[in-house]
Amino acid sequence: MTAGSPLLAELIEAFRCLPGVGAKSAQRMAFHVLERDRTGARRLADRLVAAIDRIGNCRQCRGFSETEICNVCASPARDRSLLCIVESPVDQAAVEAATGYRGLYFVLLGRLSPLDGLGPSELGVDLLGERLAQGEIKELIVATNPTVEGEATAHWLSQLARDAGVRATRLAHGVPLGGELEFIDRGTLAHAFGTRHTLT
Amino acid sequence: MTAGSPLLAELIEAFRCLPGVGAKSAQRMAFHVLERDRTGARRLADRLVAAIDRIGNCRQCRGFSETEICNVCASPARDRSLLCIVESPVDQAAVEAATGYRGLYFVLLGRLSPLDGLGPSELGVDLLGERLAQGEIKELIVATNPTVEGEATAHWLSQLARDAGVRATRLAHGVPLGGELEFIDRGTLAHAFGTRHTLT
Ligand SMILES: [Zn+2]
Ligand SMILES: [Zn+2]
Repeated sequence: MTAGSPLLAELIEAFRCLPGVGAKSAQRMAFHVLERDRTGARRLADRLVAAIDRIGNCRQCRGFSETEICNVCASPARDRSLLCIVESPVDQAAVEAATGYRGLYFVLLGRLSPLDGLGPSELGVDLLGERLAQGEIKELIVATNPTVEGEATAHWLSQLARDAGVRATRLAHGVPLGGELEFIDRGTLAHAFGTRHTLT
Repeated sequence: MTAGSPLLAELIEAFRCLPGVGAKSAQRMAFHVLERDRTGARRLADRLVAAIDRIGNCRQCRGFSETEICNVCASPARDRSLLCIVESPVDQAAVEAATGYRGLYFVLLGRLSPLDGLGPSELGVDLLGERLAQGEIKELIVATNPTVEGEATAHWLSQLARDAGVRATRLAHGVPLGGELEFIDRGTLAHAFGTRHTLT
């Protein structure tokens, strides 16, 4: 397929680390950048390395950040009485893009899943408990995914909130059961966010 | 969308240089590599840079190569009496993957297109003329795309071959008109390759 150039074969193989990229797409990508966009490919390589080397997790919210405290947590424009809890950085991005939410976030980097060795401590319960105990947060918006594990995680979070005397809310129905926030259309997600209800 | 990390926003934008990658796919790719496959992403970055820096065009066939003469042209196992002419490296890869062809290639890096400033000299007519004049080639397999410009290019190539006293063949019907070799299924392409006919 790429008999003339071993480096080309290696590049095609490397593209397959990307989600949704099979053998055919990987080949198309490799030929495209070599034939038509070497500048774009070099920029992609540079930014991949910069992102890998410098993006870690915010010490406060555990979301992606290249600084100790991310730009969201550091922003004076954010409402510090609202804390939205999501499973992953991509869910945080989905909420941020779809809703007008201007509060803070907390990223679990997972969901309760004993079989995978994911319990409260892996999900940052110490950090979250401290935040709740500080008394600044008035509402905990539980935006875990509506899967079995996500619902169990939501239940656990509502208990944490109740113990701390903080109101917990959950995104409204409208988010399809079994779905993943990342793949929901913006309108549905915005609606569900707007009609969130108190967890009982 | 990526309020916490400017580097993340830059990475998402950079993924859009790839064909078929829109805003949503680019975001998914960036989060995927950061959350789950930094090793794969670093390998991709390394290979992109290696490919961009080191892959040029073979001095003999103009296909992709990281050496002066590509592995196909240099291979003693190839039949030097057959020369398959394609428009682009990706077409060469398609023929190589779909057929049992074991001859050599010549890559035009384009097709006759006067409006785009592409004439015989841009398509390497000097190099091709030399090859034909050497007398080693017995058959010129014209595998340009079955588009209007590809057909005009095929016509020009058949004249070149006739002038040099070399038989020219064209891929058989079976390749859909208006299609591009790159996107044809292997079976169709292999059949068309096998039933190629003499250009008259
Ligand atoms: Zn943060
Ligand atoms: Zn070559």
